[in-house]
Amino acid sequence: MSLIKLGIPKGSLEEATITLFGQAGWQIKSRSRHYYPEVNDPELSCALVRAQEMAPYVANGTFDLGLTGLDWILETQAKVVEICSLSYSKSSNQPSRWVLVVPQGSSIQSIKDLDGKKVATELVGFTRRYLAERGVVATVEFSWGATEAKVVEGLVDAAVEITETGSTIRAHGLRIVADLLHTETRLIANPTAMGDPAKRAKIEQIALMLQAALAARQKVVLKLNVAADNLDTVVSLLPSLHAPTVNHLYDKRWLAVETVVDALAVRDLIPQLRAAGAEGILEFELRKMA
Amino acid sequence: MSLIKLGIPKGSLEEATITLFGQAGWQIKSRSRHYYPEVNDPELSCALVRAQEMAPYVANGTFDLGLTGLDWILETQAKVVEICSLSYSKSSNQPSRWVLVVPQGSSIQSIKDLDGKKVATELVGFTRRYLAERGVVATVEFSWGATEAKVVEGLVDAAVEITETGSTIRAHGLRIVADLLHTETRLIANPTAMGDPAKRAKIEQIALMLQAALAARQKVVLKLNVAADNLDTVVSLLPSLHAPTVNHLYDKRWLAVETVVDALAVRDLIPQLRAAGAEGILEFELRKMA
Amino acid sequence: MSLIKLGIPKGSLEEATITLFGQAGWQIKSRSRHYYPEVNDPELSCALVRAQEMAPYVANGTFDLGLTGLDWILETQAKVVEICSLSYSKSSNQPSRWVLVVPQGSSIQSIKDLDGKKVATELVGFTRRYLAERGVVATVEFSWGATEAKVVEGLVDAAVEITETGSTIRAHGLRIVADLLHTETRLIANPTAMGDPAKRAKIEQIALMLQAALAARQKVVLKLNVAADNLDTVVSLLPSLHAPTVNHLYDKRWLAVETVVDALAVRDLIPQLRAAGAEGILEFELRKMA
Amino acid sequence: MSLIKLGIPKGSLEEATITLFGQAGWQIKSRSRHYYPEVNDPELSCALVRAQEMAPYVANGTFDLGLTGLDWILETQAKVVEICSLSYSKSSNQPSRWVLVVPQGSSIQSIKDLDGKKVATELVGFTRRYLAERGVVATVEFSWGATEAKVVEGLVDAAVEITETGSTIRAHGLRIVADLLHTETRLIANPTAMGDPAKRAKIEQIALMLQAALAARQKVVLKLNVAADNLDTVVSLLPSLHAPTVNHLYDKRWLAVETVVDALAVRDLIPQLRAAGAEGILEFELRKMA
Amino acid sequence: MSLIKLGIPKGSLEEATITLFGQAGWQIKSRSRHYYPEVNDPELSCALVRAQEMAPYVANGTFDLGLTGLDWILETQAKVVEICSLSYSKSSNQPSRWVLVVPQGSSIQSIKDLDGKKVATELVGFTRRYLAERGVVATVEFSWGATEAKVVEGLVDAAVEITETGSTIRAHGLRIVADLLHTETRLIANPTAMGDPAKRAKIEQIALMLQAALAARQKVVLKLNVAADNLDTVVSLLPSLHAPTVNHLYDKRWLAVETVVDALAVRDLIPQLRAAGAEGILEFELRKMA
Amino acid sequence: MSLIKLGIPKGSLEEATITLFGQAGWQIKSRSRHYYPEVNDPELSCALVRAQEMAPYVANGTFDLGLTGLDWILETQAKVVEICSLSYSKSSNQPSRWVLVVPQGSSIQSIKDLDGKKVATELVGFTRRYLAERGVVATVEFSWGATEAKVVEGLVDAAVEITETGSTIRAHGLRIVADLLHTETRLIANPTAMGDPAKRAKIEQIALMLQAALAARQKVVLKLNVAADNLDTVVSLLPSLHAPTVNHLYDKRWLAVETVVDALAVRDLIPQLRAAGAEGILEFELRKMA
Repeated sequence: MSLIKLGIPKGSLEEATITLFGQAGWQIKSRSRHYYPEVNDPELSCALVRAQEMAPYVANGTFDLGLTGLDWILETQAKVVEICSLSYSKSSNQPSRWVLVVPQGSSIQSIKDLDGKKVATELVGFTRRYLAERGVVATVEFSWGATEAKVVEGLVDAAVEITETGSTIRAHGLRIVADLLHTETRLIANPTAMGDPAKRAKIEQIALMLQAALAARQKVVLKLNVAADNLDTVVSLLPSLHAPTVNHLYDKRWLAVETVVDALAVRDLIPQLRAAGAEGILEFELRKMA
Repeated sequence: MSLIKLGIPKGSLEEATITLFGQAGWQIKSRSRHYYPEVNDPELSCALVRAQEMAPYVANGTFDLGLTGLDWILETQAKVVEICSLSYSKSSNQPSRWVLVVPQGSSIQSIKDLDGKKVATELVGFTRRYLAERGVVATVEFSWGATEAKVVEGLVDAAVEITETGSTIRAHGLRIVADLLHTETRLIANPTAMGDPAKRAKIEQIALMLQAALAARQKVVLKLNVAADNLDTVVSLLPSLHAPTVNHLYDKRWLAVETVVDALAVRDLIPQLRAAGAEGILEFELRKMA
Repeated sequence: MSLIKLGIPKGSLEEATITLFGQAGWQIKSRSRHYYPEVNDPELSCALVRAQEMAPYVANGTFDLGLTGLDWILETQAKVVEICSLSYSKSSNQPSRWVLVVPQGSSIQSIKDLDGKKVATELVGFTRRYLAERGVVATVEFSWGATEAKVVEGLVDAAVEITETGSTIRAHGLRIVADLLHTETRLIANPTAMGDPAKRAKIEQIALMLQAALAARQKVVLKLNVAADNLDTVVSLLPSLHAPTVNHLYDKRWLAVETVVDALAVRDLIPQLRAAGAEGILEFELRKMA
Repeated sequence: MSLIKLGIPKGSLEEATITLFGQAGWQIKSRSRHYYPEVNDPELSCALVRAQEMAPYVANGTFDLGLTGLDWILETQAKVVEICSLSYSKSSNQPSRWVLVVPQGSSIQSIKDLDGKKVATELVGFTRRYLAERGVVATVEFSWGATEAKVVEGLVDAAVEITETGSTIRAHGLRIVADLLHTETRLIANPTAMGDPAKRAKIEQIALMLQAALAARQKVVLKLNVAADNLDTVVSLLPSLHAPTVNHLYDKRWLAVETVVDALAVRDLIPQLRAAGAEGILEFELRKMA
Repeated sequence: MSLIKLGIPKGSLEEATITLFGQAGWQIKSRSRHYYPEVNDPELSCALVRAQEMAPYVANGTFDLGLTGLDWILETQAKVVEICSLSYSKSSNQPSRWVLVVPQGSSIQSIKDLDGKKVATELVGFTRRYLAERGVVATVEFSWGATEAKVVEGLVDAAVEITETGSTIRAHGLRIVADLLHTETRLIANPTAMGDPAKRAKIEQIALMLQAALAARQKVVLKLNVAADNLDTVVSLLPSLHAPTVNHLYDKRWLAVETVVDALAVRDLIPQLRAAGAEGILEFELRKMA
Repeated sequence: MSLIKLGIPKGSLEEATITLFGQAGWQIKSRSRHYYPEVNDPELSCALVRAQEMAPYVANGTFDLGLTGLDWILETQAKVVEICSLSYSKSSNQPSRWVLVVPQGSSIQSIKDLDGKKVATELVGFTRRYLAERGVVATVEFSWGATEAKVVEGLVDAAVEITETGSTIRAHGLRIVADLLHTETRLIANPTAMGDPAKRAKIEQIALMLQAALAARQKVVLKLNVAADNLDTVVSLLPSLHAPTVNHLYDKRWLAVETVVDALAVRDLIPQLRAAGAEGILEFELRKMA
């Protein structure tokens, strides 16, 4: 009966992906000694596969839908439909990016200086194309991870590595020469599946709910009480999709106001609201916002 | 001053039970080097005891109230009052059940084929009565756990074991012959305590709040904004205990609608609501619903 | 651009402090191989320092603002402004307190009996002043922690140690003779910073939001439906800052009531509300209340 | 081809048993997802079973040979041949013993005082027979472990529990009234297997090698050089099975002496040997001594 | 001053390799935040690199010497000198081998049946050559590990995976069709380095000592006492490189005999030696045997 | 009956100390919920105390004997007898040393440049005296650990910290200006105890055995067989306390040679010995050498 075959990225993204689907409305449960996680929707079946291998499996129809990084979509040049970006996996507030790193004392100061050098990376295809487009002739070697160690040990002249803050790179005495690619997670679909109306509807439902879950992480609901005289001042401080909900309290001289705001704005908004006469200000978390 | 002596099941149910009581309104804290957990209610005292031993202690008045599985109530044939079922402990979406397992290649195909065989189980009394009622004569041995290993190793012909999905059983090359008992957690009370009005009131308060906490895990609140013209269509999509709460927004052409729905229904409901003109749809979690 | 230098207590309070700031609106992230945590507010910079050392660093202007215990403020006699108390770190429902402990069989029965004895403690300055004010002449030794072991081993006659429930102390066969100090976390500021209007405003914003986060942990929102006839009875059961919000449901014979109550009161309130005719009672958690 | 079916005690004794067999000459390897450990001897097959269940399985021929405690042999009254004691499992220098424990303030002062009381224990059969032999009429309940908690919580009047140093018992405020049984690990065999010459020979080989491994843990080899004049004095200090091996060094005025001594005696022997003129004293560990 | 650049395999072989070098006479210490392990020999420098990447780095002179598996030497077709095999890394008594695995119910029964199928493996180059040599045309995909999951999930028709006992493969319901390659660890050197007499001497020293350490793991020394009359019988039971060392004891009627034997033979030898009159039989472990 | 009260350093040295005493002949066992470790010698009693506090407790007779670092002996200026150095605690081959560290870009280039600066350290007394002796006037603050963080964060100008390789210091971007003190573990005794003949004898026994255990870690025994013609060449390669033990083999044309050598020398010695005609070379570990 299953309609959509969904690829879940195994490893560092796995837990965050399962948590996001849970918030979006699908309970996915890993089962010991099973490779297929269980999901509480008969229209879905799930399988775990590494992020590096996801795009080709979606492209060839093994999966109808999957999640992986832009980096691995570009690396594999797989023919997939990008449904939407989903920013749920970063450990810092900075974007994940692939950077060129060299030893502190290296003479390499720009991409051009890689000419004739040896570069290690997990992203071989992308790096080769990136250098070729810029007319740089270098040896690009595949590396199974811990790539920066090869630069430290002098096995290669440079590496193309992923980082967020660059702190690990600096801690090993390496220097970032250039950013090659900013990446983030994408929801991708098989083109043929997108041409099938039933599958497309299911894919769009999943995309809508994942986005509703992510949007809810950025927003909160504020409720507050305000005397009728102060209502306009208070309402003028509040952003809203339309306008806040306003109701009379049992004590009719007071009004209850409710609205959605950016979670990050609240720390500045509450002092202003109180200064404007608001009382009983309450903040609520959201599970979905669509 | 304590009124009710409460037995908390030690071990696999312990953490889930303490979390449920926390949501229901009672903070229970294990204390290192203490056997009595602390609880923030002078009318309650708690003790930890294994689920297997709970029912007899409730039956003989050592505890007024306790939580344990239906399996152990039947095993011990203890005279207790079953207040309500509480489904909070399963790791999958399938019921816990005691099954008869045999090696893949065994000739045993039904309960009847156990005649003259040796069976290992933790649930000796129940299994013996179950077989006797069906006229099957078999040796039933008590097993301290890891019972399925005894079947694998050939120490016994069959085992009666608890499982949810059966995956561990299949992974060991065993086969499920029959289900003997579906079980779940029950809140049980001492009959004499139920005859004492003060104790009964306290027990009913606890039962009510535990059920309110469990009910809240299955429900969410949806709020949404809708233009007045679309209100009826949107409301027709919503189930409710009575009917949704509807309020005017500050911008009077729009209405705010609020209602309780099944958490599991939301992933299908939101796309329908948006198609019907709803905007600013928000989902909130609940802590209790009574 | 940073305005306020904030000291975060390292160690046992660290995680709870970062969680509290997160709820209050500031994401603080520890960075591996960095000593300065990252914070998502350009007006703040953070550093980690032990609770014992916080007050002097705030007093001398190294930090504008910090969190530490009353015990260490008193120990160091640092000149700081105490902004507010923040009770977010206790593992039990009892206050943290510094107590005098002796072996079970010791002849020491009161503070006076310490005359001529040897006492080990981490809180040397406070203990010396405490004894001097009471005319007791004792040797007070600095101890690097695990102080109670020194009493057990007979290295000293007594110890001044921090405890909540006293259970660890009793488990080692020691006896509590007296309470010397009840302590809790304080938000403290540098006096000069409090004299600078811009800094003072930022400090007051932080204090307001931390208190709003802590207050929200003690409260919940209750919503319920009630037939118009039962409204007054139900409302009379509810406490409120002003009065509950009351709205008509779509079915006009019913009203929706919403109010804030103490989280701890709910377990008693719900049975009363239901007895008074309330239905569809829902409990919501709060993230901030100001 | 396997000749002997060997039962390995699962759980707390498992790792120590496998280590002992390794030293004795048999590599036993647990295999994930297998219940039969692998052993590098085609004449042996191994299975894991709980110590409590070992003796009946050896008695009924499921196993030819097994290891378990004297306590569980007595509890089950299984008809087995006790080959030898093997002391390899204790965490302290004191024997494991089953003791009667009561609350500190209990009026129970001797076994006789148990008359009319309720006792919890894992060793129900043994305890009942022990009390019956002494004319004591008490209710003895089976307990699934953590038995001492039941005494602390007042669920029973007393418990029969296993302990080495008694420190956990005292830490919970309990008192030891009497020792009921000193226990240690035994190598046990099936009587029929012992009547089969080939099996008996294999069992005796295993027993000999296990004892050789255990004996080697208590002994060391000492070698030393001594001038010919001091030889007699030095030799008089040394115990030996026969007499030490004595050899001339390349420098003929010196002799090399070698002997086996108790490991525990060395700390006293070396100072005496040096005082008697010994030089170049070397201590070697043993792997087997037979 | 360093003469030889040594590559240590990172990951699963790393700890076993460092332990083996320690026994052979070189202390290698990993240093946190360093990629070069420290070694206590100024003539050596060490670097960590994955086993998969070792052979090319030795072939191109980045390292003079390294350790890796035969599988990765064949996969990379690197031009290196194989100094010797070193069997120190297996977790069972069976060889590591790369096998072709398919689902239990697959129609694939031999290598030939792979024609037209899709195969996943980490050993792409070797597998492609292996199939080409046998005239089989199949798609061979690179897999980043957890390859057998791809067969279970149906992403590919078959996989070429490494295993020792095959138990994990069977536990997942897969079937082994054929063995493609038996592999073990090899010490490999750069051809140019082998042509430099100083480097060659150092490499041969390292090879000799690693082999001496491994040989010592298979042998033990037995010592025993025997009455002169029984000497010939006892000696006839003993294998030796030349012959056992025999010495008179202080008590001249007895002789001490010492010899090297296979560790695995001891469990059979000791009963025979005792039957022949040997006493005081001692077994000693070895650290090196050359 | 206990004669000697021994202080064991708690924390980072604790496990290494207990292992060393075990090798020396005393089994020390930590007991849960006890502060006094158990020791298998009625003439000894043990207690655990921090290394920082050891010397004063030995000086005032609380302990007769203890182990701590030279650094803490100097810091506390305690009047103790230093029995011997014991090098058993280092994680690298380099000595532990207290160094002055500053930020990479600091203007401080020597001890003299500390004039007028603020320094944080755990070793306040030693550092103050060290600076005073050199005429440097600086503020020296006590730090509860993680001292280098204070330099990174700019709370102080410099720190005096302990290090072995300096790698953590460099990883944080700090620079080592000078070494202030090389330290290692010392066995220290109370002067009065050393004046009591019985106690002194026991202390000297312990010191002798600890040194015998440590010496054994640096040495091994080599045994080899050599044809009579090659004996002199082989013996000339061997160092010895006196001379090697030489014996005839059963085959009289061969001789067995046995001697003690430095463990570190073996990797060079074995190739030479084999070149000189030695065969059957065996290396044995030692447990004590005195």
